[in-house]
Amino acid sequence: MRTYISDLKDHIGEEVTLKGWVYNYRASSKKIKFLILRDGTGLCQCVYFKGECEEEAIELFSEVTQEACVEVTGVPRIEERSPGGVELGAQKLKILSKTVDYPITPKEHGTDFLMNHRHLWLRSKKQHAALRVRAELISAIRDFFNGDGFTLVDAPIFTPSSCEGTSNLFETNYFDDKAYLSQSGQLYMEAAAAAFGKAYCFGPTFRAEKSKTRRHLIEFWMVEPEVAFNDLYDNMELAEKFVEYIIQRTIKNKAEELKILERDTSGLEKIKGEFPRLHYKEAVEIIKKENPNFIDGDDFGGTDETIISSKFDKPVFVHHFPSAIKAFYMKEDENEKGYSLSCDMLGTDGYGEIIGGGQREESIDVLQDKIKEHNLDMKDFQWYLDVRRYGSFPHSGFGLGIERTVAWICGLPHIRETIPFPRMYGRLHP
Amino acid sequence: MRTYISDLKDHIGEEVTLKGWVYNYRASSKKIKFLILRDGTGLCQCVYFKGECEEEAIELFSEVTQEACVEVTGVPRIEERSPGGVELGAQKLKILSKTVDYPITPKEHGTDFLMNHRHLWLRSKKQHAALRVRAELISAIRDFFNGDGFTLVDAPIFTPSSCEGTSNLFETNYFDDKAYLSQSGQLYMEAAAAAFGKAYCFGPTFRAEKSKTRRHLIEFWMVEPEVAFNDLYDNMELAEKFVEYIIQRTIKNKAEELKILERDTSGLEKIKGEFPRLHYKEAVEIIKKENPNFIDGDDFGGTDETIISSKFDKPVFVHHFPSAIKAFYMKEDENEKGYSLSCDMLGTDGYGEIIGGGQREESIDVLQDKIKEHNLDMKDFQWYLDVRRYGSFPHSGFGLGIERTVAWICGLPHIRETIPFPRMYGRLHP
Repeated sequence: MRTYISDLKDHIGEEVTLKGWVYNYRASSKKIKFLILRDGTGLCQCVYFKGECEEEAIELFSEVTQEACVEVTGVPRIEERSPGGVELGAQKLKILSKTVDYPITPKEHGTDFLMNHRHLWLRSKKQHAALRVRAELISAIRDFFNGDGFTLVDAPIFTPSSCEGTSNLFETNYFDDKAYLSQSGQLYMEAAAAAFGKAYCFGPTFRAEKSKTRRHLIEFWMVEPEVAFNDLYDNMELAEKFVEYIIQRTIKNKAEELKILERDTSGLEKIKGEFPRLHYKEAVEIIKKENPNFIDGDDFGGTDETIISSKFDKPVFVHHFPSAIKAFYMKEDENEKGYSLSCDMLGTDGYGEIIGGGQREESIDVLQDKIKEHNLDMKDFQWYLDVRRYGSFPHSGFGLGIERTVAWICGLPHIRETIPFPRMYGRLHP
Repeated sequence: MRTYISDLKDHIGEEVTLKGWVYNYRASSKKIKFLILRDGTGLCQCVYFKGECEEEAIELFSEVTQEACVEVTGVPRIEERSPGGVELGAQKLKILSKTVDYPITPKEHGTDFLMNHRHLWLRSKKQHAALRVRAELISAIRDFFNGDGFTLVDAPIFTPSSCEGTSNLFETNYFDDKAYLSQSGQLYMEAAAAAFGKAYCFGPTFRAEKSKTRRHLIEFWMVEPEVAFNDLYDNMELAEKFVEYIIQRTIKNKAEELKILERDTSGLEKIKGEFPRLHYKEAVEIIKKENPNFIDGDDFGGTDETIISSKFDKPVFVHHFPSAIKAFYMKEDENEKGYSLSCDMLGTDGYGEIIGGGQREESIDVLQDKIKEHNLDMKDFQWYLDVRRYGSFPHSGFGLGIERTVAWICGLPHIRETIPFPRMYGRLHP
């Protein structure tokens, strides 16, 4: 019967068998050999003492290499200095399969080399930890919405048209037609909100951007809730509650992984309660003091976002962006022409935009005008206009990018390590 | 303060305001009017009695139409005959937005018409119910794996090559390269199993099949677990436990929805404990008795699957399919040349293959031969071969198709109603 390393503490003093891979090893002397075993659930130091273990194990140790697949039998004991607080008094050793010249050694490697070996790099301690944080975050996101009366409504990936023009879209032949890969499920979620009241989608989205920044992926995951009868302020309240929940739960449940990533989580622990809210105009005033070249009416660049977020120890909402820089479906504020009922949330520590969203236009006439203004094909949007034609209702929602949020929580400088197999401009392998 | 219909039973005797859409209405007489309100969480009968409600409400009732967006204020009371066991003694009525000629009336419509109006059809009782079952199933699947030590490892959608040849693949320009849309995340999960021990992916997959059957979608969701050190039999045991959990939980938590779908769940309730297991040869003997044209060595067709599954009241495993009809990565049984360590699970009630999987080839030499035999490009598989090159290990996994499972649970004859926005041969809209 095989035991996982994460369960060892329940088997102190009992003989167990572990299977996994050699993370590291050291033959200190003829009498004592150390092997750090990795099995996906944790690391375990296995100690072979001559005389206490099988003689064959000591002999076989000379064939041990990094990432060889092995089976180790022994008795776990408490050892505070070991990872997980347990070490194994090892007795037997079996090499299940050998490994020669494992490419990723404990020495430093260049990023390109590591990314080319992503399928192996996943085995490394920090990569492993970051992806476990990602998995917990995703789980927290789903639990939040499922527990708050939302229905998961998967949006399609193949779409006949695009939300915001066809630039940056991946195209494919769809039999005798053309299909585009989804950039957002939002339009579909608006129809879903009419059916389910509270709906969300969560899936991969695609942007064909030729940018090689630390914040861009070609393929990334996004969660997009949409709520019937929510206005801009309800929307910000939802986003606030949501971000508090997912951050607090993730840092609590993945404390060990965040320690491996050397992330100081004291800042993240403060992300509770109400977040500051700035009108676009207020945000612009703050930016202008430090970036005099900023032009009123423009969208924020990365530096501008950093200027704002550096002023607060919580995420910040910026709302009421100029309508001119927002998508056609964003509702204009009736009391403030030219400004939209939009809101973005900027993360702390300079991580920039984490959430983008707002209240949607519900008037069919206004929406038709906007579609014309944006030079979009009215025919493609007839189904979307139906959401206004038949029982139109105020509604709001937002999108949160998973990878940016993982980078933020983990304190990673580059988004490429937040997804198992990143797709970027110039990278499609492995 | 707005209340959701699903929460009404907690507000008996208190004044509440509901917002939603008119599902149906009836002006029985000048004195009494009925309105069935829908808000995404349920249906509520709202009763307007002249004299007990505002006079304006009675007057406004003549403007009520199907799917108009309305606000209703009144007092909930117990009424066993009503949906949800509660009805509303209505006092006020506001029409928030009108609806003229809602396309989907209570009369019968053709499937094509309904599919063209899928964005509205979602509001209908049965469609709503089926998608709520889907959402619960997905949640059950994730909870099962997350609770069993698996790590979610999202597989990429863009892949540089394909698992099983390039036929049926969607292609897109990836800057100066070509990318294919994933048909399966399995190869990536094998690398992930080496890093995490137990890994799973869950996302959309794509097959460009020109088939218009009741069991095929172009875009469908699949969950694919992969476990290091599991053999074929461990794999079947995992699949068995998994299917029991997801079926039992879904029929328990979505009993109301399954009633709306008129699904008799007594058969599904029996899906517990061990499932029958048939060697391919045993399955063939059963098939041949009823389908004498079946050729030994062939894969099963829909009728063949039905013949087998009709013999059991639980899902059935068929294992040891001929290697010749299985993918290149499927391990051959050393003790039974020509037969693979593969297993499919067939659902009950003629729903056919729900799960496909097996044990993977772990020898790099055998795998290289197989890649050549299948005329695949060795260059594309170097990263995959690395999983054998560096610490190769026995491992197994399977894939479960979400939509087929939803159809099975709901007893739906056609898979198109199991996904919010189906993409099929000849259908890309809405």
